[in-house]
Amino acid sequence: MSLGEFQLIDRFFRNCGAQRTDVAVGIGDDAALLDCPPDMQLVAAIDTMVLGNHFLAHFPAESIGHRALAVNLSDLAAMGAKPAWALLALTLTKADPVWLDGFARGFSALARKHDVALVGGDTTSGAFCISVQLSGHAPRPAKMLRSGGKPGDVVFVSGTPGDSTGGLAFELGKFTVNPPAGVTEDVAAYLRQRFHFPTPRVELGLRLRDYASACIDVSDGLLGDAGKLAQASGCGVSLAWEQLPASSQLVAVAGETRAREMVLTGGEDYELCFTVPPQNVERMMRELPDAMWGYTAIGVLGAAPGALVTRGGTVMDFSHSGFDHFAGACKA
Amino acid sequence: MSLGEFQLIDRFFRNCGAQRTDVAVGIGDDAALLDCPPDMQLVAAIDTMVLGNHFLAHFPAESIGHRALAVNLSDLAAMGAKPAWALLALTLTKADPVWLDGFARGFSALARKHDVALVGGDTTSGAFCISVQLSGHAPRPAKMLRSGGKPGDVVFVSGTPGDSTGGLAFELGKFTVNPPAGVTEDVAAYLRQRFHFPTPRVELGLRLRDYASACIDVSDGLLGDAGKLAQASGCGVSLAWEQLPASSQLVAVAGETRAREMVLTGGEDYELCFTVPPQNVERMMRELPDAMWGYTAIGVLGAAPGALVTRGGTVMDFSHSGFDHFAGACKA
Repeated sequence: MSLGEFQLIDRFFRNCGAQRTDVAVGIGDDAALLDCPPDMQLVAAIDTMVLGNHFLAHFPAESIGHRALAVNLSDLAAMGAKPAWALLALTLTKADPVWLDGFARGFSALARKHDVALVGGDTTSGAFCISVQLSGHAPRPAKMLRSGGKPGDVVFVSGTPGDSTGGLAFELGKFTVNPPAGVTEDVAAYLRQRFHFPTPRVELGLRLRDYASACIDVSDGLLGDAGKLAQASGCGVSLAWEQLPASSQLVAVAGETRAREMVLTGGEDYELCFTVPPQNVERMMRELPDAMWGYTAIGVLGAAPGALVTRGGTVMDFSHSGFDHFAGACKA
Repeated sequence: MSLGEFQLIDRFFRNCGAQRTDVAVGIGDDAALLDCPPDMQLVAAIDTMVLGNHFLAHFPAESIGHRALAVNLSDLAAMGAKPAWALLALTLTKADPVWLDGFARGFSALARKHDVALVGGDTTSGAFCISVQLSGHAPRPAKMLRSGGKPGDVVFVSGTPGDSTGGLAFELGKFTVNPPAGVTEDVAAYLRQRFHFPTPRVELGLRLRDYASACIDVSDGLLGDAGKLAQASGCGVSLAWEQLPASSQLVAVAGETRAREMVLTGGEDYELCFTVPPQNVERMMRELPDAMWGYTAIGVLGAAPGALVTRGGTVMDFSHSGFDHFAGACKA
């Protein structure tokens, strides 16, 4: 790309995201200067999205901008943190104004919703790759670390995991609309929306600080991520097949059994999997009604290591417990 | 890449960089938790290095690790900030243990030198791309912003810009060793070292807070970057050809004239270009002896916009005032 193209790119990001009074110097100098609130910890994450792995070239630019920020918002949500400042490292083969406008709009809309300012970045010429770094704040002491779970803690998940993978399957033509079988345009639109514009559970993460012992964001598959939480806590985890929250739309298109498998192993859901000590459960369900906050009890932590799923009291066999990004799905 | 490969990669970065007591939670959770010093501003930068643009596949992995961090250290140096925490977004086509070991060693050695902890990251499968985000701290009030210069301020540059481009030219076979012409193995080794292991001027940046009005890191060519500083300050800049600090090694291989052109337009030098009000110059030169700190007065800010070079009082003609990364050089 020419210098002119780099200047073009910069133009799209000058007023991207929220305006914040704690940004002393934002885009335009060698680095951003930011005012941290006293008595809070800084919470920092970085995530990358790559063409052919996390998205395909024909996906809407707004979706790519949304998701590039959402994955980081979800990381901060899992720490019970309030997001504040983003840096964007954007590597592009060419500067397409239409694409840049869409990307910036998708990114900016989600950033404003969560009061996130874009404070700096770097644009580079090369194979399509997007890294977003997000910082935010959380009160001391640290809570909801992956390592905070104890045997007996109840395991919950927000939302309906698997929907994102269902939406991707429509994008890739693996699922198709078929009204006689109950797969309507509405079902397809819902699942596509869940893939392209996932909802990071920032507000839920903030509220869970008062109840949860541990938390992880579900981006690589619920079973695998619950297993990571359990391992970090020195525990194992047992999930109950019957309690897995598959959406009616996912069930309509995939059937009951495949839908629950997708709940367990789908990727890029950006839901929260969290554990709550038994003595906190009733208070949480009273103060954060699950009907309003959309979470479901799905299992329990135990002393024995491992991550397993039971069905009618019997341990099920799963050969794949993790989701290796979208490599398989996108390249298929 | 398989999940196993991602785990392999993570292994190389578990103990990378310095250990810091202000890292409450580092690698291994959804985000890092960090303790900011009170009464300091957070200083944050991000930079990307791309295969074929900033490096070639056969370049030493140690160099790529060093440079990926150095470019960010240089940004923080230009803000007069003390670096602290890094996040690494690493996108690789495959997990080569030998390469990863070299990259991590190069990154870690420079990180430890500057007391930088690697607190998190993301590894992804895709076209080779490396983004590093670096945070640090600077006292209030903000100093050395690009916008701080005034007409009459003296313009300085650290080190000997152009050496990095000279080293790259050896890597690409555009310069060759020729002892009869004075181009010895030592000359080549020196310039190659300047390219592969540039020295970010962190300590100088910290010290300059007491003297400089504005500062920018020289990564896209001295003339272009000095022009950016001048523009942000609402000034123009005039550099004196005779004062440009070309290294004897660069002169040996490129000749006096071409060497000075490379000082002006070479890229990836990671030197600091800074302006000092006339009343501070003598004090700075006494308290930071230039013989020890290695900087040179090269020009002056003026009221008229633009960036120009004078030679014997006459304005020289430069058609290229900026350096578009290494796109041209690496792809040639």
